[in-house]
Amino acid sequence: MNEILDVIIVGGGSAGLSALREVRKHTDRFVIINHGPWGTICARVGCMPSKALIEAANAFHRRNTFEEFGIRGSDQLTLDIPAALQRVRQLRDDFVSSTVKTTEELGERAISGRARLLAPDRLEVNGKELRAHKIIIATGSRPIIPASWNSLSDRLLTTDILFEQKTLPAHMAVIGMGFIGVEMAQALSRFGIKITAFGGNQFAGLTDPQVIATATELLGKEFPLHLGKKADLNLVHEGIQVRAGSVEIVVDRVFAALGRRPNIDHLGLETLGVSLDQHGMPPVNPNTMQIADLPVFMAGDANDQVPLLHEAADEGYIAGINAMRSDPLCFTRRTPLTIIFTDPNIAIVGSRFQTLDPAKTLVGEVHFDRQGRARVSQRNKGIQRLYANAESGRLLGAEMCAPAGDHMAHLLALAIDRSLTVQQLLRLPFYHPVLEEGMRTALRALAAQLPVVNEFDLSMCGTFNTEALD
Amino acid sequence: MNEILDVIIVGGGSAGLSALREVRKHTDRFVIINHGPWGTICARVGCMPSKALIEAANAFHRRNTFEEFGIRGSDQLTLDIPAALQRVRQLRDDFVSSTVKTTEELGERAISGRARLLAPDRLEVNGKELRAHKIIIATGSRPIIPASWNSLSDRLLTTDILFEQKTLPAHMAVIGMGFIGVEMAQALSRFGIKITAFGGNQFAGLTDPQVIATATELLGKEFPLHLGKKADLNLVHEGIQVRAGSVEIVVDRVFAALGRRPNIDHLGLETLGVSLDQHGMPPVNPNTMQIADLPVFMAGDANDQVPLLHEAADEGYIAGINAMRSDPLCFTRRTPLTIIFTDPNIAIVGSRFQTLDPAKTLVGEVHFDRQGRARVSQRNKGIQRLYANAESGRLLGAEMCAPAGDHMAHLLALAIDRSLTVQQLLRLPFYHPVLEEGMRTALRALAAQLPVVNEFDLSMCGTFNTEALD
Repeated sequence: MNEILDVIIVGGGSAGLSALREVRKHTDRFVIINHGPWGTICARVGCMPSKALIEAANAFHRRNTFEEFGIRGSDQLTLDIPAALQRVRQLRDDFVSSTVKTTEELGERAISGRARLLAPDRLEVNGKELRAHKIIIATGSRPIIPASWNSLSDRLLTTDILFEQKTLPAHMAVIGMGFIGVEMAQALSRFGIKITAFGGNQFAGLTDPQVIATATELLGKEFPLHLGKKADLNLVHEGIQVRAGSVEIVVDRVFAALGRRPNIDHLGLETLGVSLDQHGMPPVNPNTMQIADLPVFMAGDANDQVPLLHEAADEGYIAGINAMRSDPLCFTRRTPLTIIFTDPNIAIVGSRFQTLDPAKTLVGEVHFDRQGRARVSQRNKGIQRLYANAESGRLLGAEMCAPAGDHMAHLLALAIDRSLTVQQLLRLPFYHPVLEEGMRTALRALAAQLPVVNEFDLSMCGTFNTEALD
Repeated sequence: MNEILDVIIVGGGSAGLSALREVRKHTDRFVIINHGPWGTICARVGCMPSKALIEAANAFHRRNTFEEFGIRGSDQLTLDIPAALQRVRQLRDDFVSSTVKTTEELGERAISGRARLLAPDRLEVNGKELRAHKIIIATGSRPIIPASWNSLSDRLLTTDILFEQKTLPAHMAVIGMGFIGVEMAQALSRFGIKITAFGGNQFAGLTDPQVIATATELLGKEFPLHLGKKADLNLVHEGIQVRAGSVEIVVDRVFAALGRRPNIDHLGLETLGVSLDQHGMPPVNPNTMQIADLPVFMAGDANDQVPLLHEAADEGYIAGINAMRSDPLCFTRRTPLTIIFTDPNIAIVGSRFQTLDPAKTLVGEVHFDRQGRARVSQRNKGIQRLYANAESGRLLGAEMCAPAGDHMAHLLALAIDRSLTVQQLLRLPFYHPVLEEGMRTALRALAAQLPVVNEFDLSMCGTFNTEALD
């Protein structure tokens, strides 16, 4: 293979596969290089297995509503943890196999090995040098583990090995209350494992103090939640000792969820001739995915920008298109959206509360405690806070810990993407009885603070102020 | 009370209360008259108690997923039907009390009695004559029961008395597969009652043959479903004999769901001096709620247009505003939306399939059998079909029997209300993994049939064609 390739894609995960799809439309002079097992983070150790675990945990947890519904015998239910984990792996294997199909068919254009850049148009893999007009770096990320924790050996779990466990112990600590930590702490606790959770000053990416208060209160009822103190771990005879502030406990195992680190070490980024920041990261344009003005693009978790599957897919798409062009195109990125599949869901849409100017922003909120449909379905917990521009009435963002938050977040993302106003959203038919009527309460709270746009429009149709009808 | 009132509202249900809220903003020279118990259909015998029943039924039915999740002991679960019905009534009483609060506070301005029109500005109630500048008729509806079925006495149930039952028998027939019949047949079947269902040529208001096929197939797996034949009932010694075509069964009781009839008999509509149709209904303008050019308005189920809570609330609002004006205003009504809370949800948004010109309409569809998140949560059943204008790419409507159909229907209603195109909807961030990714598959199927609007836009970002990522 002495040819000069059109494109080399480094990394066969979600971003790499998305780039590959675009590149293949134009050329077959490409290779894709992958280090370690093929298959995406999402399918192998991320979104999919975690959701399989969560669905089992929530189905089991739902037994606590049975007595009130009139369902008897819930005290006879037990969770067979090995069987639950077995199902997680079965689904995962199936999902992984669907992601590796593409690259399996590529033959020698799919290379297993660790790539190392030599220059903006050259790299080395498995002792061979490859040249290309364009290079796309999509090497993904891995869990962060402090060096001092390496001594904890197999008592320390991350997403890399959590789903490989045949069973789980009686008492675990979860360290880190980011997206993954919060989801897994609740799910493992609902599995019947005694969980103690530790987090820093951030909680689930939320920035609205009232949403944080509700989310931590609700989760804190399910397991002890210690926030704001650094956790120190030590191997002791009985397991791992966790100390954080005045808290000191010993657990069987620790699940570490301190975030993810981009896989850029040993990649040779220093050979590109651009300045790297203190983390060794080159400048990547989020609208083109280009590194500086080089023929090199960086997409997905590797660039450490927004480590989410749907963003990685977009970045691979952008990188793939731009790698086949002489002038890279600027893409408008999507409305920011994060969903954490706790119960109730935590979701953040559009602009975060903390980034908004309080003088120019209105807030409308709803508590789901007394919301009609939420009560009927025994899901009446949570809060949703919507943010709108005080002058234009345009919806700007939302933070929530709310039932069906995953679904409402999509509707709100559409509204923000289309620059819709609160009044335009109140033109929506809200069927009865649905959880979205809670969102309408928050929208009406915003509308009440805005000047009346058109009094004689159905968007002004008010509340009955009765729980049965709102 | 010899004064000439500004407004008389006849009916204290959802439409009447909505009208009342508007009228009270401008005058206290009004009365509201209600026949029978105060409280809305929705809270008393409609949306709310039916949803309470459905939530218990679905929670109990969910035990069938437990074994696969690794949850053991589901065979020990039983449903205590009297307790389940007791909870339905408890919630209902609470919701009803929230709706009657408003009228309780009105003192003698709230009149219990049956009103009879004498002229467009006069009516009689409890032997007294009242005059008003405007009259709003919002007398609601009641279940249809063929005269010949009256002999079935208490073996025949409707929503009026279903939720009053202390328990339910072993075998029931449900007659009528409209919104209510379909919901209740599934819920009662999931209660463990042997259900046999009978319907005519319509099913759940759906018009798309493929959605009807999926919905009837899914529900038909839960209970025998006989469609297209008229059911004849006869009281026999052991219960009620139901005959429809070649089917002949005997059941303990029959739940009749043949639709609802507006409460306009004995109302004196013939005194208004306008022509009535064959059902005795005067012409009502759906944008003003006015009857012809009379100072009389008709809102909610009474006018037999769209007997849904959110529409009744709108109609009461319109009637209330217009009753206080010399020239009635024309209101643009909301995007049509119907949701049936079966599992999976049946939903119809915007234009129905049958009303669209096939030559000018594109269809995009998704089956949920292999959709990632649906599989993980064991909710992988159903279909969603989206309709778009073949020229403009604008979304026109949707019919579905799909998991989280209730939520997606709201998002689609927003898109239709804002005249959004398929490509604009594909700008939406679809988080991963969510059921909305199924909807994206249907949108992409539409986009593939439309001319490319802007190739270099994230809305064109394609599928991975792997189940893990779509």
